[in-house]
Amino acid sequence: MENEERMKRGYDICKQLDRHVSPHQQELSPGLHELTIGHLFGDIWSRPHLTLREREMITVATNIALCRPVGNHSHYRSALKMGFTKEQIIELIIQVGHYAGWPTIALAARQFAEVLEEEERGHDGPSRFI
Amino acid sequence: MENEERMKRGYDICKQLDRHVSPHQQELSPGLHELTIGHLFGDIWSRPHLTLREREMITVATNIALCRPVGNHSHYRSALKMGFTKEQIIELIIQVGHYAGWPTIALAARQFAEVLEEEERGHDGPSRFI
Amino acid sequence: MENEERMKRGYDICKQLDRHVSPHQQELSPGLHELTIGHLFGDIWSRPHLTLREREMITVATNIALCRPVGNHSHYRSALKMGFTKEQIIELIIQVGHYAGWPTIALAARQFAEVLEEEERGHDGPSRFI
Amino acid sequence: MENEERMKRGYDICKQLDRHVSPHQQELSPGLHELTIGHLFGDIWSRPHLTLREREMITVATNIALCRPVGNHSHYRSALKMGFTKEQIIELIIQVGHYAGWPTIALAARQFAEVLEEEERGHDGPSRFI
Amino acid sequence: MENEERMKRGYDICKQLDRHVSPHQQELSPGLHELTIGHLFGDIWSRPHLTLREREMITVATNIALCRPVGNHSHYRSALKMGFTKEQIIELIIQVGHYAGWPTIALAARQFAEVLEEEERGHDGPSRFI
Amino acid sequence: MENEERMKRGYDICKQLDRHVSPHQQELSPGLHELTIGHLFGDIWSRPHLTLREREMITVATNIALCRPVGNHSHYRSALKMGFTKEQIIELIIQVGHYAGWPTIALAARQFAEVLEEEERGHDGPSRFI
Repeated sequence: MENEERMKRGYDICKQLDRHVSPHQQELSPGLHELTIGHLFGDIWSRPHLTLREREMITVATNIALCRPVGNHSHYRSALKMGFTKEQIIELIIQVGHYAGWPTIALAARQFAEVLEEEERGHDGPSRFI
Repeated sequence: MENEERMKRGYDICKQLDRHVSPHQQELSPGLHELTIGHLFGDIWSRPHLTLREREMITVATNIALCRPVGNHSHYRSALKMGFTKEQIIELIIQVGHYAGWPTIALAARQFAEVLEEEERGHDGPSRFI
Repeated sequence: MENEERMKRGYDICKQLDRHVSPHQQELSPGLHELTIGHLFGDIWSRPHLTLREREMITVATNIALCRPVGNHSHYRSALKMGFTKEQIIELIIQVGHYAGWPTIALAARQFAEVLEEEERGHDGPSRFI
Repeated sequence: MENEERMKRGYDICKQLDRHVSPHQQELSPGLHELTIGHLFGDIWSRPHLTLREREMITVATNIALCRPVGNHSHYRSALKMGFTKEQIIELIIQVGHYAGWPTIALAARQFAEVLEEEERGHDGPSRFI
Repeated sequence: MENEERMKRGYDICKQLDRHVSPHQQELSPGLHELTIGHLFGDIWSRPHLTLREREMITVATNIALCRPVGNHSHYRSALKMGFTKEQIIELIIQVGHYAGWPTIALAARQFAEVLEEEERGHDGPSRFI
Repeated sequence: MENEERMKRGYDICKQLDRHVSPHQQELSPGLHELTIGHLFGDIWSRPHLTLREREMITVATNIALCRPVGNHSHYRSALKMGFTKEQIIELIIQVGHYAGWPTIALAARQFAEVLEEEERGHDGPSRFI
């Protein structure tokens, strides 16, 4: 039951962040899926002292810094959903880039442009960049 | 002259962030020192669309994620100066840590505790953790 | 002659690990190819004190942690060849992910799912994910 | 109550791994301490399909690869506690080092030598390398 | 006006390095584009004490070490333009790889082979690997 | 016998680079020591197409980019031995730093300043920063 609540809380936060659950991960391993929804979104993102908007800003900064090949696109969408403007996200990319190096700017700019392009075309349902 | 303005703007922002200029870097290379003060603080930190407080949050998140051996302490001080509470910084550490791994939490918690301890003792002048 | 032996030992270990030699690297540079087969597989993977299965587990953990864009797929195949079950590899991903951050889980889960899918379709010859 | 069980399970696993809880982190933030003991050790390390010994091997490999300035020493101790010999740990360092680069070997060798030295002197209580 | 000079200097260096300006970044954000051309290429690459050829070698080494998913291809082209031979670039990959790990060799070898193939086909205009 | 030659070649290159063999690593594991001297210095650093000076430049760039907590100091010494001036090394730090982030500049500047200070005092024998 406690677990049910965590899952519910996790799904609710994902919805607020406009995140689509990866069918991929769920099918591969229900246990891993529960960790992602229940622990990461249900337990961590719901903690006090920082707003969802601040947590999204922190997460985007972290992900740009780590320069991962996949998994960043969806957080640009969440950041737009949380009310960040295009200009603010570009400044965030520039700020992180000075601490993490120019190639992190280059990757982030490319990924963010792809997300903006998809938004403009008015996608519905999960992005092709989950 | 343009350069003088950038340096002035950079020093001014450093002051707002309670940053003490590393005598180290200045002595080693005046050219590098100018880049840090004039370009990084004067040109980048002063850009529009994000507040200094937001840029500090982004920078602390980036630095925790990259888990550098040195250079993070001073940004915890700047974050406190920008009005973040101890509780907010701990939440920031937890949020970044879930995206960058538990050892980044362990290092950040240790470094932040060192800064808090120094603050409580009422340091004056540059921190020993520049 | 010594070199011939190292190459032979390297190819033999690659075969045990179900690794297909990248035609790519061999064509680009025979010298680099010799280092990979002769030194990495011939000299290092054949060292005592750890079994091939243990070395594969260590290598997969390292590769997930480093979150490289390419080069991990083939090691999931080698891990399956070494007798690790799907469930064990998922647990390995979860364990590493807590020390290296959630995006490493996301990338690893996606790459491992791609390997499993290919295995199920019964590929023969080198994987498209060399 | 569920939380109490997680904490108990976490402490129990720490004991099996000869881990001393950092007084540091507990004092800084009870909430973070609960996450480390309850979630990381209580929920993750206790998962099925891999033994504690295998999870320790995976964790040491991950930590060497990430080359963090602090936090690795304690896992060499846990690895010795889990029955790995000095020779096996050195081979693990060599294997990871070929995938993560020579400086990760240099740091790991230095940190492991420090742990061995402390062990030989017969420390009691927490290591100075928590 | 000072800015105009920096941009001119930046474009001039890009031309010497056979770099094609990413239309992508310019369209997304003229401000970011100015930073890349004016600051990175105009101010940094034009600094004294190192030749363009040496700066290219340093940049390629850095990029291989960081193992970024995108953004390295164009620098192999610039390195060829700066007079490095295929053999020298392969040695550079091997040298970096021993300090940054074998997967950085694997990614670099693949990316460099893609650039060579494109060169051999005699591309004109921007590479598909900008 | 072949191994003896590799070790001799490795020691010879270390001498040219003014590198002092870590007694640490040799004592911990003769096998690892042989890999470092025989393979890394004997086999890799002696390869053709790049000079020792170029290999040192590449290695310093890689190490700055990876921002390791230890192991970089000795390479600044080797770079000085290879004829790089203080100004050139500072430019190398600035160039890498723009691709790897400002904290890599901060760490490198600090470490290089420590090496210069030791050089000025006229150290003999191994540096305290091996």
